[in-house]
Amino acid sequence: MATIKDVAKLAGVSVATVSRVVNKSPKASESSKKLVTDAMLELGYRPNANARALVSQTSDTIGLMVSDVSDPFFGSLAKAVERVARDQGMHLLIGNGFHQTEQEREVLDLLISKRCQAFVVHSKALSDEELLEYARREPGMVLMNRMIPEIAHRCITLDNAKGTEVATRYLLGKGHRHFAFINSTHDITDQIERLSGCERTLREAGLNIPQAAIACDDPNEEGGERAALNLLSRGIEFTAVVAYNDAMAFGAMSALADNGIRVPDDVSIVGFDNLIYGKYLRPKLTTIRYPIELMATSAIILALELSKLKPGLAEKPQLNFIPTLVIRQSVVEAHKQPAIIA
Amino acid sequence: MATIKDVAKLAGVSVATVSRVVNKSPKASESSKKLVTDAMLELGYRPNANARALVSQTSDTIGLMVSDVSDPFFGSLAKAVERVARDQGMHLLIGNGFHQTEQEREVLDLLISKRCQAFVVHSKALSDEELLEYARREPGMVLMNRMIPEIAHRCITLDNAKGTEVATRYLLGKGHRHFAFINSTHDITDQIERLSGCERTLREAGLNIPQAAIACDDPNEEGGERAALNLLSRGIEFTAVVAYNDAMAFGAMSALADNGIRVPDDVSIVGFDNLIYGKYLRPKLTTIRYPIELMATSAIILALELSKLKPGLAEKPQLNFIPTLVIRQSVVEAHKQPAIIA
Repeated sequence: MATIKDVAKLAGVSVATVSRVVNKSPKASESSKKLVTDAMLELGYRPNANARALVSQTSDTIGLMVSDVSDPFFGSLAKAVERVARDQGMHLLIGNGFHQTEQEREVLDLLISKRCQAFVVHSKALSDEELLEYARREPGMVLMNRMIPEIAHRCITLDNAKGTEVATRYLLGKGHRHFAFINSTHDITDQIERLSGCERTLREAGLNIPQAAIACDDPNEEGGERAALNLLSRGIEFTAVVAYNDAMAFGAMSALADNGIRVPDDVSIVGFDNLIYGKYLRPKLTTIRYPIELMATSAIILALELSKLKPGLAEKPQLNFIPTLVIRQSVVEAHKQPAIIA
Repeated sequence: MATIKDVAKLAGVSVATVSRVVNKSPKASESSKKLVTDAMLELGYRPNANARALVSQTSDTIGLMVSDVSDPFFGSLAKAVERVARDQGMHLLIGNGFHQTEQEREVLDLLISKRCQAFVVHSKALSDEELLEYARREPGMVLMNRMIPEIAHRCITLDNAKGTEVATRYLLGKGHRHFAFINSTHDITDQIERLSGCERTLREAGLNIPQAAIACDDPNEEGGERAALNLLSRGIEFTAVVAYNDAMAFGAMSALADNGIRVPDDVSIVGFDNLIYGKYLRPKLTTIRYPIELMATSAIILALELSKLKPGLAEKPQLNFIPTLVIRQSVVEAHKQPAIIA
């Protein structure tokens, strides 16, 4: 790969002159520009944008860390963040942290090393202490779906427990009294919060959810399928399922159908996330809406503001969000007897 | 943000000494290491990895450009590429090109400016000429699902037409004679190739597919839904649908169900891509398998080899792949009369 020295040599000028031309300095003469530009073309030299950045200490790239872009939830988060980034004329670079400490650390270091100055970070594995350290060094870092009190003003959060509280209340309102919960095994706070929202609401209604009625697995379709099968295998009686997310609900619906249990006629189910495909399932999935576009917009605007890349973009953006119910077709009035495998 | 000069000043050493410590040079004395490390901690100095890279001209980052990571197909491509990258101890940075010329150009420039040397590129908008120019400058650039004869040895391809040929043949074998095709409107070669595979196979069987039986829309669930509704609205008679991809098939199934048309009893449908959720739909979606993990593995190994980052990794990897049929539940024997809206 050609270097700035090669260009200087071919053009017969100094490295400083090449640098001036590359950086579009007014000090570069017309003849220098021509010599240097011709030499760059001939050598296929690509000015290293990082070299320019080192000089000017600026960057127009936003770094985004999610868990795994192939997960439809994070895919839609990335999409929302990208849209806002493009609206602001910024580029977006995405890295996957997989909710693992070492990987999250490496991705953050990578994005920092690539001179991102504004960051939107969905981190669940790194400790509060370590994230605080990153946050201290990187003023443009904003956390998504994570609350660290010392930097609360940089945290965009969703009330996870409220979401399942709303789902549970809706099912109670439809007469359901026998509940099951399909939860994620991922070691992150969301699964604790979402389960607690459901349990708390049931307790207030004088009900409870037995341990055996809580099935945990990977937070995807396959995990939802296995969790539902485990509920059936344990002979748990239930007419209502609260699922950790739409993907698990989807898998659960499939497993129930395979076992002659109809949704919603025999078992009602509520998901979480409001993924697009919920509208195309049969029955269409009742779910909890995660206002991902609103949160992504707040995150980017805040990150650009704090990093000083684009100060004064907007009034103080909203930080804390509340999930809402999306009523579709997967919940009906409870029958008197819970359904079990016929 | 602290610079190397600030560290040198605080530590009471030269910039060269700081540089030696940062780059773990054996020439750095123990006392220097301690002075410099303490100063870096105190100032919160993060050695700029790009500065190191400028010195050593190496990089351990693979750049991946897809159309849109929130699209489940590209999400699974990104996942496959990431897995192979991690196996090789490399980091992955992802950018979205949205199948638009300007955006694809910016993403490639961005990844190059971030000193990626190995690239996996799913480009559909940039011209052959422009991609060739990038490829000439970047020896480690590998194209996915794109064939440019001048750099055929750097192109990982899938025979798109073969995929729909297989789907069509399967439906013909089940006795279907009235076909509809749900296609993508995206201005990329895949939609031409996939339609042609179906049309060609029908022609060989003495059949044809009328223009009105080809409905085009966005290559997602919503587009598939609209396309199916348009077929119904035109009064097209069909017992078999070949869909551009699984997402459109999913949306189409939903639209047909809404209109009292049962899949597969009334209409059989075959998708393309073999997305995970195809297994969880009811009926489970018969589809064409896109060997994405195989292709991603070939792409990365080739990119690492060509960029000289990891020469000699494997024997010459496979470049051209053939899609295969995944038989599930959405295709049955054709009835004598095509179904229309009752």
